[in-house]
Amino acid sequence: MSQWITEEQTPHLRLSAEAEEVVYSGESEFQKIEVFKSKEYGMMLALDGVFQTSEREEFIYHEMMSHVPLFLHPNPERVLIIGGGDGGVARECVRHDCVKEVTMVEIDGKVVELAKQYLPTIAKAMIENNPKLTVKIGDGIGFMAEAEDYYDIIIVDCSDPIGPGEGLFTEEFYKNTLKALKKDGLFVQQTESPILHQPLVKKVFGYVNNHFPIARLYTAFIPIYPAGMHCFTLGSKTFDPLTWTPNREQNFETQYYNQDIQKAAFALPNFVKAYLPKKQ
Amino acid sequence: MSQWITEEQTPHLRLSAEAEEVVYSGESEFQKIEVFKSKEYGMMLALDGVFQTSEREEFIYHEMMSHVPLFLHPNPERVLIIGGGDGGVARECVRHDCVKEVTMVEIDGKVVELAKQYLPTIAKAMIENNPKLTVKIGDGIGFMAEAEDYYDIIIVDCSDPIGPGEGLFTEEFYKNTLKALKKDGLFVQQTESPILHQPLVKKVFGYVNNHFPIARLYTAFIPIYPAGMHCFTLGSKTFDPLTWTPNREQNFETQYYNQDIQKAAFALPNFVKAYLPKKQ
Repeated sequence: MSQWITEEQTPHLRLSAEAEEVVYSGESEFQKIEVFKSKEYGMMLALDGVFQTSEREEFIYHEMMSHVPLFLHPNPERVLIIGGGDGGVARECVRHDCVKEVTMVEIDGKVVELAKQYLPTIAKAMIENNPKLTVKIGDGIGFMAEAEDYYDIIIVDCSDPIGPGEGLFTEEFYKNTLKALKKDGLFVQQTESPILHQPLVKKVFGYVNNHFPIARLYTAFIPIYPAGMHCFTLGSKTFDPLTWTPNREQNFETQYYNQDIQKAAFALPNFVKAYLPKKQ
Repeated sequence: MSQWITEEQTPHLRLSAEAEEVVYSGESEFQKIEVFKSKEYGMMLALDGVFQTSEREEFIYHEMMSHVPLFLHPNPERVLIIGGGDGGVARECVRHDCVKEVTMVEIDGKVVELAKQYLPTIAKAMIENNPKLTVKIGDGIGFMAEAEDYYDIIIVDCSDPIGPGEGLFTEEFYKNTLKALKKDGLFVQQTESPILHQPLVKKVFGYVNNHFPIARLYTAFIPIYPAGMHCFTLGSKTFDPLTWTPNREQNFETQYYNQDIQKAAFALPNFVKAYLPKKQ
């Protein structure tokens, strides 16, 4: 018998997905986790009641979190993923020939375990023990704070700024990110919806703008996230997405990402440009 | 006391908005109409249970339906709007100095009446009796079929392809659109979500591709529509959005639209390009 699983996207908006079956429902040390087979989007993962990913549209989020920063860099070799427990970002990162090591630090081992069991297409690189990939279970914020001048790319694939993701949205975190990156490194973080979460977007963008020579925002359609309009904040030491031209071949197929999308994603609506802090 | 108003976006997905007050609920000759004050998006209009527009995010849809086709044309003078009963598209069209006449043909007079009463910021041009604007209550399909070599721009601001909007999604309709347009005219139609409504998008794009020299699809974030990822199909006799460069000044402010967005909106994800019919 089917049932409806509802996310309270904001106190005044709810998205409900019909599920054929709830395959897992439990509590980890960090959060409530649910995995269910939805009729519209295939298998879906929810953390603390918030939809995280789904089989049918996961490619958008994972490609846009990975290929936009990776192709911005002409030769990324070392990638750090903070969070990303479902493995989708890792799966995309290892596809770049130039990438030599991908380290993923996820705080909740239960998410990794469940992704391998119920979301195998997303967790592919973890299941196959891809030789480029190291998965660590632990505190990504602390892990990164130890690094200096090491990573080409840091991808912060965190959940919302409540619960375990909270420490990812502090000014200290961006200082450590800057330190952990090489001199031409860059990082990207998912930063919710530019229409529904303006205070958060503004705050994070302000921090990144204060510490990085180049701060940019880009957007993508994420059907299961609030408003479907999602944004990513990018901080870069050298490479600017606004003057990007293709610098190497893409020798693998993607379902959402392409070179036109790489450029177009940085075209911001006027209402977003109006509230983003400017360089001093 | 507040209540939740739910749209069944697909048989397996529901979006619910909390409403402080339902200000109108009734049946017109054509459809069920509800107007309610939502806590997240302000006043909202629903037709046959489908959310159409809201005060808070209407600017995206209305600007993208109007300014993308209008700025593609260097000198649009005559605009026909089929549908568009809330008046939002008309409001944007009359802002172009070069536009001399905007004719809007909406089938349901009750929608026009309610928009004037409850959505005054959207219905602005209708309320103010803008001298460029003529509002007709009647069958837009039949009205357009009478026209020949007359319009620079036709905007089909229809509801979904069930109910009164049904006749807008037939091959005959696109033949008549071609005939009604001048030799360098162009038209645009809202065509639902490229991720959730692929068969419809494919069908309409195929018709337009068969009859117009130039057929293009563009996208915009529409938070209250299914998946938040919405698309618009554009058929053009002469002007191609893929080679567009600004041809005149925009001497009014917009909240979403700008020249970067005009170009970026036509960058399509790979999964969309893969299923769109190609030119023979």
